[in-house]
Amino acid sequence: MNIVRPTLVLNKTTCLQNIELMFEKAKRHKLLFRPHFKTHQSLVVGSWFKNLGVNCISVSSVSMAEFFANNGWNDITIAIPFNIHEVEELNKLTQTATINILADNITTVLSLKGKLTNETGIYIKISTGYNRTGISSISYTRIDALLEAIKLNPKLKFKGFLLHSGHSYKARSRNEVQNIQFNTIQKVSKLKRHYIKKYPDLKISTGDTPTCSISENYQGIDEIRPGNFVFYDLIQHAIGACNIDDIAVRMHCPVISKQPHRNEIIIYGGAIHFSKDWIQNIDGKPNFGRIVISKNNEKVLLRNSSYLYSLSQEHGILKVTSKEFKQINIGDIVEIIPVHSCLTAQAMGKYITTKGEEITMMRCI
Amino acid sequence: MNIVRPTLVLNKTTCLQNIELMFEKAKRHKLLFRPHFKTHQSLVVGSWFKNLGVNCISVSSVSMAEFFANNGWNDITIAIPFNIHEVEELNKLTQTATINILADNITTVLSLKGKLTNETGIYIKISTGYNRTGISSISYTRIDALLEAIKLNPKLKFKGFLLHSGHSYKARSRNEVQNIQFNTIQKVSKLKRHYIKKYPDLKISTGDTPTCSISENYQGIDEIRPGNFVFYDLIQHAIGACNIDDIAVRMHCPVISKQPHRNEIIIYGGAIHFSKDWIQNIDGKPNFGRIVISKNNEKVLLRNSSYLYSLSQEHGILKVTSKEFKQINIGDIVEIIPVHSCLTAQAMGKYITTKGEEITMMRCI
Repeated sequence: MNIVRPTLVLNKTTCLQNIELMFEKAKRHKLLFRPHFKTHQSLVVGSWFKNLGVNCISVSSVSMAEFFANNGWNDITIAIPFNIHEVEELNKLTQTATINILADNITTVLSLKGKLTNETGIYIKISTGYNRTGISSISYTRIDALLEAIKLNPKLKFKGFLLHSGHSYKARSRNEVQNIQFNTIQKVSKLKRHYIKKYPDLKISTGDTPTCSISENYQGIDEIRPGNFVFYDLIQHAIGACNIDDIAVRMHCPVISKQPHRNEIIIYGGAIHFSKDWIQNIDGKPNFGRIVISKNNEKVLLRNSSYLYSLSQEHGILKVTSKEFKQINIGDIVEIIPVHSCLTAQAMGKYITTKGEEITMMRCI
Repeated sequence: MNIVRPTLVLNKTTCLQNIELMFEKAKRHKLLFRPHFKTHQSLVVGSWFKNLGVNCISVSSVSMAEFFANNGWNDITIAIPFNIHEVEELNKLTQTATINILADNITTVLSLKGKLTNETGIYIKISTGYNRTGISSISYTRIDALLEAIKLNPKLKFKGFLLHSGHSYKARSRNEVQNIQFNTIQKVSKLKRHYIKKYPDLKISTGDTPTCSISENYQGIDEIRPGNFVFYDLIQHAIGACNIDDIAVRMHCPVISKQPHRNEIIIYGGAIHFSKDWIQNIDGKPNFGRIVISKNNEKVLLRNSSYLYSLSQEHGILKVTSKEFKQINIGDIVEIIPVHSCLTAQAMGKYITTKGEEITMMRCI
């Protein structure tokens, strides 16, 4: 690899291993595996799933559904409350693919009346504690009203309840994640028991990367939709969802300046490459990435007291020890493990594998 | 305008006004105006500068220099310490354009020995308090050593000292910015006095958006390079560098969910659209954008107790009052004033003007 400027490098072996492990886990628990493709947004990585027999996917926008539907994927859940301005695009999609949308309010469902041209699957979005979108799992009155509104539209086919325990991203131990999953299962089991007689085919869809990586308890759950696990990142590592070695992407950045009085190494690699997501470092400060350097032809992960501590548009500043400072020279290529691989990949729009294969993304905006 | 999904909208009138005001200010102070093009990265917006007679620009990467050099711009400063892996690209650029690079260390300068094929301008990067890159303005020994190294390379032409008072971005009052500028001027004046006899043509280049917007003191400075002012944003507003009405870009986002128990409005518009830069809100929490809604066909800026308070990949959550909550409906298009317009524009890669003209960016990664 000849790295000239900031380059996101994907370790294909690690990535394939992450995919296989999650695939096997879903199989072991008899769950439908509907991976979220928003992290990689790539046909090449998509084909690695397809090779295992995966046919159903999740995406986070109508644009992303269009991209994958136009490229051979025909069973897609658009896992964000449906944006009523995109009905035309939805109707085009449902001409050739099985598409599921999401709603958590009557206005959205009623707005679709008389506007859908083909059968469209719909999940009711349930909130189990993340508190972003969705109806509380015990708000039967609101759920019933929504079910009634769905029934009024002959093109809508109620598929079940979908949730995303995104609060697991704030967990900082495997135990916390297990608790979140336990809580989720209690809530959705109750919900399922309440509605299963009337809707015997209803499915429960869940599955963020932390819980899918850590939990072995999927009682009452029918489908999982993790996405980030394909690459993992420092957030997942902080949660306990992966080991550092499971993180499949690293940004390779040239060193362009050194500040000896402050033990700071300046890299070409900034907010437009990494995004500005951060985790709290051991010293309480925002950490934008961990550092791997080459020493005697070996890759060495620096301790977490050394880290990418500041990002501006194209510059990144590494705080290192005085010993490390001497080991890193102008022109060196350092490797940074990103904090949030979904946003980093999106920012870059492309990556290369460690074997030099170029992979372009769609960057569905 | 028919807004379907998150769309960055540029008010051309406001943008032209921002450009003209800065152009006039540079003229008034007899400064060479070398605007930074990293904020807009667009040929169309570039042409608005050209129409005023601007011919010299700044960029923040070799890739960005390539883009503008290939499109009619032939006097470009690459305002980031030079990345020694891009010498070949640099040599291509200097075949047809006047290019200035930056260095703050001998290794970079020595690495260019025998490698440059055409005359290349070089600035020594000076630090005046931002503490990102650069040599302290009183480190004459280090500066002299660098000047000696530059002299050894017949293709390098020393142009002067370049600085970026980026610490002005942390200021939260016009007074603070004035103080930073006063301090900068003291430092660079001394530096200039020290070297002007030996290098009578040396120039002092500075000029971040906060100081260029606020200060009327440019003693000893020859050139300014502001960039963000073309759009401005909430950070500049918090600093006091612009009024809210001077901010030329807004993200238009559809409302996709409402959470009545929390007075939260969920928009389609997330971290991949806005970036994750934030400013501290009046309540101490991270603010990712301010909200403008339409009421009786008028645009109303909500008070800053209501704001974009959370971003995930495609979702944004607005915290609003219960009264505002009732005024905003599913399917409405709300307008968000971005925190950091450079990163927001970069994330989007395109924008449209209020008159519907589409403007594509280069997104130089």
